[in-house]
Order: sequence, then C-alpha cells, then structure tokens
Amino acid sequence: MFVIVTYDVGEKRVHKVCKKLKQYLMWTQNSVFEGEITKGKLVKCLTELEKIMDKREDSIYVYEVQNPRNIVKRVYGQEKSFEEMFL
Amino acid sequence: MFVIVTYDVGEKRVHKVCKKLKQYLMWTQNSVFEGEITKGKLVKCLTELEKIMDKREDSIYVYEVQNPRNIVKRVYGQEKSFEEMFL
Repeated sequence: MFVIVTYDVGEKRVHKVCKKLKQYLMWTQNSVFEGEITKGKLVKCLTELEKIMDKREDSIYVYEVQNPRNIVKRVYGQEKSFEEMFL
Repeated sequence: MFVIVTYDVGEKRVHKVCKKLKQYLMWTQNSVFEGEITKGKLVKCLTELEKIMDKREDSIYVYEVQNPRNIVKRVYGQEKSFEEMFL
C-alpha cells in the first residue's frame, strides 16, 4: 500500500523519529514521509515509533491508500531533496 | 475528492499560505491540511496560492484521492487542534 506519514513531535525526538521513518519510507518535505510499504512493515515501523514518541505530547498521522493508483501527487514550486533539508 | 496538502514555504509567507488553505481545507498538523474539495475549488485555491508563494524557494505538495473511501487516516498519540497550534 501507499502511505503518507506526517509527524509533530517534541524537538528532542524529531531526529529519532525522522531517522526511524527514513528506514521505511522516503522523506518528502518538512515532517512528511511517503512511500509504498507492506502492512507488516508499517506495523513494525509504528511499533518502533511508539517506543520513541511521547504519547501525551507527540502526534503521528498515517494516511493509508491500499492501491497506489488511487492517489495522485502534484508538486507546486520546488521539489526538495533530503540532503538539502539537512545542509 | 479528498486532498492532503503539505507546504514548506519561507517564514514570511507561512501565515498567508496557512490562512489561504484554511479557507478551503481543515488544518490537521504542522504544515498539513486535509479535506474534501471539488476540483474547481482546488484549482481556485492553488491559483491563489501560486500568487502568494515564491516558486524558487517554496514548495506545496498536493495528494489527491478521487474517492475518499480509498484513504484511511490513523492517528497515533495526540490529535492536535488548530487553536492549540496558534496559542
């Protein structure tokens, strides 16, 4: 399936959450990751994220689309690269 | 259709972009908006956003799902409110 994951977590945990998501998905922009992933890997990724996040403060949103053909992505302006983000 | 809009724009334009998106969609988290919208309204929204953004620096990503039934959203941790974000 195709997923979009957005996160809003405490500053202390941003790096860890970002690093974890990067193992499973592609970084797209700011605090947004996306990519194709199996249900099993998504569950594994979220289980690992739940260990990092502080559930009283942080939030992670996952949008799941079973068939990637059902979602279209359009980019307006610049398409940013992961490297650029962390320079 | 259902859309998810994420933006990464220069600090000077964040407020304007956010205000514009709020007219058409619901704020969900950080720089993410979502909601059901007609094709016509989406085009109008994007035309207006293109006037605000600096295309050399900013980026706006739009994920379109024709049938809202094809997308599932799951929230882990806290679900944040718009008011909370701007307090």
